[in-house]
Amino acid sequence: MTAPSATVENFRAIDVIRKKRDGRELSSAEIGALVRAYTDGKVPDYQVAAWLMAAVLRGMSRAETAALTDAMLHSGEVLDLSFLPVNKVDKHSTGGVGDKTSLVLAPLVAAAGIAVPMISGRGLGHTGGTLDKLESIPGFNVNLPLAKFRRVLETCGCAMTGQTAEIAPADRKLYALRDVTGTVESPYLICASIMSKKMAEGIDSLVLDVKTGSGAFMKTEKDAAFLAQLMVETGQRMGKNVVALLTDMDQPLGLMVGNALEVKEVIDVLRGAGPDDLRDLCIELAAWMLYLGKACSGVEEGKQQSLQLLQSGKALDKFRQMIELQSGDPRVLDDPRRLPQANHRVDVKATSSGYVSSFACEQVGTACVILGGGRERKEDSVDPAVGIVLQKKVGQPVSAGEPLATIHYNSEALAARASRLLTECIVISAERPGVNRPLVHQVIRSSGEAN
Amino acid sequence: MTAPSATVENFRAIDVIRKKRDGRELSSAEIGALVRAYTDGKVPDYQVAAWLMAAVLRGMSRAETAALTDAMLHSGEVLDLSFLPVNKVDKHSTGGVGDKTSLVLAPLVAAAGIAVPMISGRGLGHTGGTLDKLESIPGFNVNLPLAKFRRVLETCGCAMTGQTAEIAPADRKLYALRDVTGTVESPYLICASIMSKKMAEGIDSLVLDVKTGSGAFMKTEKDAAFLAQLMVETGQRMGKNVVALLTDMDQPLGLMVGNALEVKEVIDVLRGAGPDDLRDLCIELAAWMLYLGKACSGVEEGKQQSLQLLQSGKALDKFRQMIELQSGDPRVLDDPRRLPQANHRVDVKATSSGYVSSFACEQVGTACVILGGGRERKEDSVDPAVGIVLQKKVGQPVSAGEPLATIHYNSEALAARASRLLTECIVISAERPGVNRPLVHQVIRSSGEAN
Repeated sequence: MTAPSATVENFRAIDVIRKKRDGRELSSAEIGALVRAYTDGKVPDYQVAAWLMAAVLRGMSRAETAALTDAMLHSGEVLDLSFLPVNKVDKHSTGGVGDKTSLVLAPLVAAAGIAVPMISGRGLGHTGGTLDKLESIPGFNVNLPLAKFRRVLETCGCAMTGQTAEIAPADRKLYALRDVTGTVESPYLICASIMSKKMAEGIDSLVLDVKTGSGAFMKTEKDAAFLAQLMVETGQRMGKNVVALLTDMDQPLGLMVGNALEVKEVIDVLRGAGPDDLRDLCIELAAWMLYLGKACSGVEEGKQQSLQLLQSGKALDKFRQMIELQSGDPRVLDDPRRLPQANHRVDVKATSSGYVSSFACEQVGTACVILGGGRERKEDSVDPAVGIVLQKKVGQPVSAGEPLATIHYNSEALAARASRLLTECIVISAERPGVNRPLVHQVIRSSGEAN
Repeated sequence: MTAPSATVENFRAIDVIRKKRDGRELSSAEIGALVRAYTDGKVPDYQVAAWLMAAVLRGMSRAETAALTDAMLHSGEVLDLSFLPVNKVDKHSTGGVGDKTSLVLAPLVAAAGIAVPMISGRGLGHTGGTLDKLESIPGFNVNLPLAKFRRVLETCGCAMTGQTAEIAPADRKLYALRDVTGTVESPYLICASIMSKKMAEGIDSLVLDVKTGSGAFMKTEKDAAFLAQLMVETGQRMGKNVVALLTDMDQPLGLMVGNALEVKEVIDVLRGAGPDDLRDLCIELAAWMLYLGKACSGVEEGKQQSLQLLQSGKALDKFRQMIELQSGDPRVLDDPRRLPQANHRVDVKATSSGYVSSFACEQVGTACVILGGGRERKEDSVDPAVGIVLQKKVGQPVSAGEPLATIHYNSEALAARASRLLTECIVISAERPGVNRPLVHQVIRSSGEAN
């Protein structure tokens, strides 16, 4: 790996821009120098914008991607968790609709004796964010200083917080620039952004949940697999154990979409109940985390162990402990009505009979944004109470007039807009749809190996 | 053509960046909106930098190139020369070493009754600039306000000035950004930059001198022909008569390189003398200008006419008149020693016998920059007196110890550096080189037609 102190004599941003523009491979030292100079304010936005666009259109080699990740990682603080005498494992999802697995996984895996230091993000666009969900728990603090984060982690084995200014500041600055220069959609840049933040957590191993389907950023399995492979290889180059699961996002995960509603569903799963797809995916991801964290000798064993931790209430206890340590009100676990509640509910009804054949999944997320439960822009605030509860999922029969979903809302006008969108995006067909898409499409473990 | 007032509803720079990034064609209205918003300071540098890089790597269609040219043209003032009852023709060169044809052509073509409104640039890198050459004439003012420029043009038929703030301000701003973002080297952007400034001169017709060879920006004939074709088509789309000559820049044009030295050589040509290649190219370019300006019925007739205007002294008289009108000292024409003179001269001698087989032509220009006769950066000042006088050109025999070139210098240290570089860049071979490269490689007149 590049030493973060690698230097380039007479570094000039223009040379690095031209080299990438002409399709030549940059050295680790060149990438490191560019990232450092940008973070230090010595290279202006416009030069980095030109370089980013060249990187998007010319692509990056594996070595360049790892060097960029490394440079971004070392632009800030890297947590040293060596004082904890256990394995440290995290999970990261590329984002979807109704994806609340992080809230189950952190306490579940911590209950098995593995440390889970989870630094998460907020929702943007059609996808929800872990921090927004956690904040629907009254009092829950997602802005922990790193010292406090370490204490919570040490005490209960898991801690969940937002990205602080100390973690990968280069990513923060680069992401803001990418957002306004049309350079977000590059697997290389996405990989470096995700992996630099995850590596800063001081973990040994990482399980990646790469979503694919109509509700994911990567709509096609090919694009999702490419990104997954890239992240796995980058993690390996940086000396970490990384596994990526390509999982289905062609319909919302579970039944609930919206911050407080999703926490309620998380509590259901932590009580050993909850919808099958959500519970199954949590167990699958937890099993890989346990396996990489050496808490079991195989993934099947990890699944059994995870199921027991849910059924025994040990995972729920761990969640309770973390909520208390992060100043949240643990009584929501016993009485979910203490979570924010919307004032009104209305059903979206089927206009014909048949079977639910598919979801325009991204639009379900958008319907939640319309209700006020998500963000169109970073600076928007969210209403934790609103959301959507699906009454039907793909493959289920439905009669005309029967509810397809229930909207929880605080504004009649917004509910009407969300209702129209939901009516359009839940597709009913006369025929029963064919074989369901599997929950886990692929597992990607190392170069070229997929099973 | 795009009306300059074409608008895009809800214009967002990010949409235009993404569209170009994805290889889709932008509309004239989108390009117009982007250029206007940038010129007005409503779109930041970093968004335009990303767009420029996408345009470099994705390329631009003919319609996009013309729309960009048009938008840049209409970002500022377009001269209205309709008050002059004659045809208006200009010439533009893509730049080379020892290329002083503009100073011959403006008075020569004006002497034939055609108006030549010439807005020129300064030297940068290895190529010289018309304004720097003119300024070596004591008192000569190249910063004419547009009103004064029009008066000089009306009085003597030609006028030569620098780009004012009123002309194509979008080009000025875009060029400065391209210079620092690695987005200079794109034929589409080069075409729009050149053509927008030339179209602002209020001309009917334009002769383009596109240089190719080791001293040109376009080293290969293929690249030069592509740019020439693009500029000819863009001019035609904008309703102008445009012809491009691909001319040789594999060795310096004429014998003199350096500002005052080149003016001396210009005076020689205007007196009917001067080196063959320079005189022949001036006559060739003048003939095309006369032909497009309808002062003759064919290019051969134009050549005869041009030769007569040189031999009769009428072209020189016109130059004298323009120098007087632009506050210069016309006595330099009768006594070139009134031009700035370097304090010292030294010969660069051949280290072996044989034939001059080739020049690393760009390095001859660089040797002049080293002496102080050109600019490495825009803000550098130039020494008008220094330069290089070639004693040999390609194909000529040479004996060891014979002078290849004479350096005119004001600094021993700089002369020593220039001398070493010149020794390296004039190649001597034992065999006489084969057939000389022609002076004019191709004439490009309209879509696909080259003769």
